[in-house]
Amino acid sequence: MKKRPTRTRRKMRTSKTAAVGIDFGGTFVKMGLVDSGGRILERRQFTTSEASDPNSWLERVEDETRVLLRTAEKRGLSVAGVGTGVPGQVDYDRGFVHGLVNVPGWERIDLASLLQRKLGLRVVVDNDANAMAYGEYCYGAGVGLRHAVFVTLGTGVGGGIVIDGRLHRGAYSMAGEIGHVTVDLHGRRSIMGRGGVEQYVGNRKIAERTRRAILRGRRSLISDLVGGNLDRIDPRVIAEAARREDALALEIFDFVADCLAAVFASVTYLIQPEAFVVGGGVSQSGHLLFEPLRRHLKERLHPVFFRRLKVLRARLKTDAGVVGAAALMLHQGLPGR
Amino acid sequence: MKKRPTRTRRKMRTSKTAAVGIDFGGTFVKMGLVDSGGRILERRQFTTSEASDPNSWLERVEDETRVLLRTAEKRGLSVAGVGTGVPGQVDYDRGFVHGLVNVPGWERIDLASLLQRKLGLRVVVDNDANAMAYGEYCYGAGVGLRHAVFVTLGTGVGGGIVIDGRLHRGAYSMAGEIGHVTVDLHGRRSIMGRGGVEQYVGNRKIAERTRRAILRGRRSLISDLVGGNLDRIDPRVIAEAARREDALALEIFDFVADCLAAVFASVTYLIQPEAFVVGGGVSQSGHLLFEPLRRHLKERLHPVFFRRLKVLRARLKTDAGVVGAAALMLHQGLPGR
Repeated sequence: MKKRPTRTRRKMRTSKTAAVGIDFGGTFVKMGLVDSGGRILERRQFTTSEASDPNSWLERVEDETRVLLRTAEKRGLSVAGVGTGVPGQVDYDRGFVHGLVNVPGWERIDLASLLQRKLGLRVVVDNDANAMAYGEYCYGAGVGLRHAVFVTLGTGVGGGIVIDGRLHRGAYSMAGEIGHVTVDLHGRRSIMGRGGVEQYVGNRKIAERTRRAILRGRRSLISDLVGGNLDRIDPRVIAEAARREDALALEIFDFVADCLAAVFASVTYLIQPEAFVVGGGVSQSGHLLFEPLRRHLKERLHPVFFRRLKVLRARLKTDAGVVGAAALMLHQGLPGR
Repeated sequence: MKKRPTRTRRKMRTSKTAAVGIDFGGTFVKMGLVDSGGRILERRQFTTSEASDPNSWLERVEDETRVLLRTAEKRGLSVAGVGTGVPGQVDYDRGFVHGLVNVPGWERIDLASLLQRKLGLRVVVDNDANAMAYGEYCYGAGVGLRHAVFVTLGTGVGGGIVIDGRLHRGAYSMAGEIGHVTVDLHGRRSIMGRGGVEQYVGNRKIAERTRRAILRGRRSLISDLVGGNLDRIDPRVIAEAARREDALALEIFDFVADCLAAVFASVTYLIQPEAFVVGGGVSQSGHLLFEPLRRHLKERLHPVFFRRLKVLRARLKTDAGVVGAAALMLHQGLPGR
């Protein structure tokens, strides 16, 4: 599906510019030298547990960045700076990390300043879901859109909102937390409130729901696929069973799709994007998810709202974080950013 | 609570400018000559049923506008144009009315062009909830805010969203329909989907819920207040009983507040406004609504999201529509509009 280059792309710096993108995940820290066409020219990676406290993280990132900068130099690229996506609460304007969800020691860290001082380069810091959303927006399934909502399915449900070509961060830089949008007034409680969709469609919640059904006596191919060890159930196994038309697996996908549809309907009534772009684990099951998702969305929206709404599959896969983080830097300071 | 004038106010045309605001309601069409300080200098009004088809409506509006224009002339005011809020689906950019909810004969009407030709003045047309939101934003409880969500409680639940000082209309000019944001995955069905909050907190739904409780044998002061005629139950009566600490009435308010809190929490996680501004019928019960609303919102939001969020009572009351419609015209074409 080819599309015309967007305003965003046309506004880009010359092709001689690149940026370093950092995707700070709970398991790996992935880095890349990304050119202004969104291509990753070189990759670096380390295991988060190797250097998870802020000091060793900064040192390791400095080392890897030096490697990427040498590559840039060899290729005659000027490096605009470094973009970083981190798994937690960020004040984007200050590049300040309030705290990270699953990485201890990251409380109130002035990350942009620290990194800037170490590297002598400009640095932007954003939430990882925003970085991924922006990557998809600039170089993936979001190309050509002006208003779009990006959703990443995983242990949690992350989100990023583009309004009028810009990431919408809200009043205090915390918007886009689509995983906590409620689908049930009397629903499951968590520190985030009640009935957030993540409590129903997060990877572990899906597995739990399946396990409970089997333990209640429901027969399913899934039991065979995990050799009777129900702890091995995960979305991939459920997808495998669904592909073979296992009734329970199909029901689980239908339920997940309906929960997402409820949230997408709410979001559409509220801000009316042109499209939802869905990525992450469960989205890789393709039509197993997207068919019931579109069907339920149709039930949950008035026809005039449903008609023009697109539901797209994300394209950048596991590169979205690195590419998006770099894009945040590449597009910084450009008109309208 | 006095506040510094906002950017919006400062950017306004000189005080010598005014606009005509039209609030097209299901019962009355209210009109006013509104100056750039948001004051209504003169009012006109007619009953909607007197002139509800597009032709007679246009004629009547033309007549009343002429009266307002004469007043403007006498006062030495130049009139920027006419702003109209209508109860239905509108394409703001074209000033085109797709259809109105409760007024027959208004299908696919090119209202801005028609009115413009009749009056020789510039015309903007928007959804009534957007107009009200914009009025509150410019001249009411929204003054000084950059990101705010405006909610009007009535038979339906209307909404308008201001992002970065501008009304957010979404991809196809239909955003802001907060009444259809879902609070229950398996909730009540309507043409708009399932479980929309309006299905629970619309005036009639509140009355129905109360009636059902009484018919099930629940004792309540409300029965006495309506002299045993349960069809006379409305939010005002329930508020009266709640003020006298009637247990059922307090429960009803608590439920309404909790439904609204669920939606406000979802909206906050999604777009993080600085404030919700709540107006319309039930909001006039004051702390009977706002106390449980803030309490439930606190339960439904993570502390960092709750801490800085404001929940304000709308100030313009029944004038919001006329003032807001005029403001849409007064601010049209100004930088950043």
